[in-house]
Amino acid sequence: MPLVRIDVSEELPEARVAAFADAVHAALVETVDVPANDRFQVVTAHPPRRLILDRTYFGVDRSAGALVVQITFRRGRSEEKKRALYASLAARAKALGIRPEDVMVVLQENTPVDWSFGAGIAQMAPAELVA
Amino acid sequence: MPLVRIDVSEELPEARVAAFADAVHAALVETVDVPANDRFQVVTAHPPRRLILDRTYFGVDRSAGALVVQITFRRGRSEEKKRALYASLAARAKALGIRPEDVMVVLQENTPVDWSFGAGIAQMAPAELVA
Amino acid sequence: MPLVRIDVSEELPEARVAAFADAVHAALVETVDVPANDRFQVVTAHPPRRLILDRTYFGVDRSAGALVVQITFRRGRSEEKKRALYASLAARAKALGIRPEDVMVVLQENTPVDWSFGAGIAQMAPAELVA
Repeated sequence: MPLVRIDVSEELPEARVAAFADAVHAALVETVDVPANDRFQVVTAHPPRRLILDRTYFGVDRSAGALVVQITFRRGRSEEKKRALYASLAARAKALGIRPEDVMVVLQENTPVDWSFGAGIAQMAPAELVA
Repeated sequence: MPLVRIDVSEELPEARVAAFADAVHAALVETVDVPANDRFQVVTAHPPRRLILDRTYFGVDRSAGALVVQITFRRGRSEEKKRALYASLAARAKALGIRPEDVMVVLQENTPVDWSFGAGIAQMAPAELVA
Repeated sequence: MPLVRIDVSEELPEARVAAFADAVHAALVETVDVPANDRFQVVTAHPPRRLILDRTYFGVDRSAGALVVQITFRRGRSEEKKRALYASLAARAKALGIRPEDVMVVLQENTPVDWSFGAGIAQMAPAELVA
């Protein structure tokens, strides 16, 4: 269910982009109860001048390799789980050679009926359940 | 008012992309009270490796042609209307030769003052109304 | 903290794109209490056929140069501040030669724990504060 938008610099090597997308999904599965095959990601590579990410805000030392992960999922995850998600993703990024300081994450929440996984149905809030 | 982001594979032929964008708008007009000229769409075509959409989640049989439609509109549409939107869009996609299973939809809601349609004004929540 | 997505036509000259991104940030700093170095923007240039923005909706006279600014920030800004943001951005666009009518803005809100500015931490809602 998460819809994940990953925005990276086009200077990030292709193999690293793919490994990072895997890492984002693995962190979601590990920390916030996302099923293993519930993976929906849109990855966009931008010219560096188009990905304008401050280098110091909030005391974090970002590099030219900074990137953004924006995740939409259903309301209901606890604050603890969200913090666990950030920590897991940072550790996984580091293991890939991506600086944890360069990984910005922004979450957005909605409700079960706000999702159709295809076939014209609101799978998480079908009409039968509310009739 | 809806702001619609449509993310497709760059292998989807141009004419089909255009027809699908029309279909998304027509479904919004038909089912969730969107005026005919209230059309604001950002369509992005991605290399297939960058649009990572699981092929089986929630029992839906997706193909390499799967795509995502993310719609932001004002809070207030009923669950029934949202389900009608999904069904209408699936039917319209099918009529274009796009598999309904390949059409994922994600909704996001905000409030009237969260919209400026240009000219520096919050058209749905102007200052005069609250003064 | 705002995450800003700016979607423009690829026909907008590069210098103007950069100046407009600066203007969006300056308007946020001026009107809605965003720190000067709290700048996170993703700018995407689209072929004109992919940025489908109605020319007349809500009585606004848009041109082929119309663009969209989608801003995510924490819940809590007043309606007045949001209106001030729209007005400031319109004035700043005009000063750059961008028609205010062409500047659409859409806001989206979330909560402090929904932000990680890097390093695996929820900087605005760290665990120590809630323990």
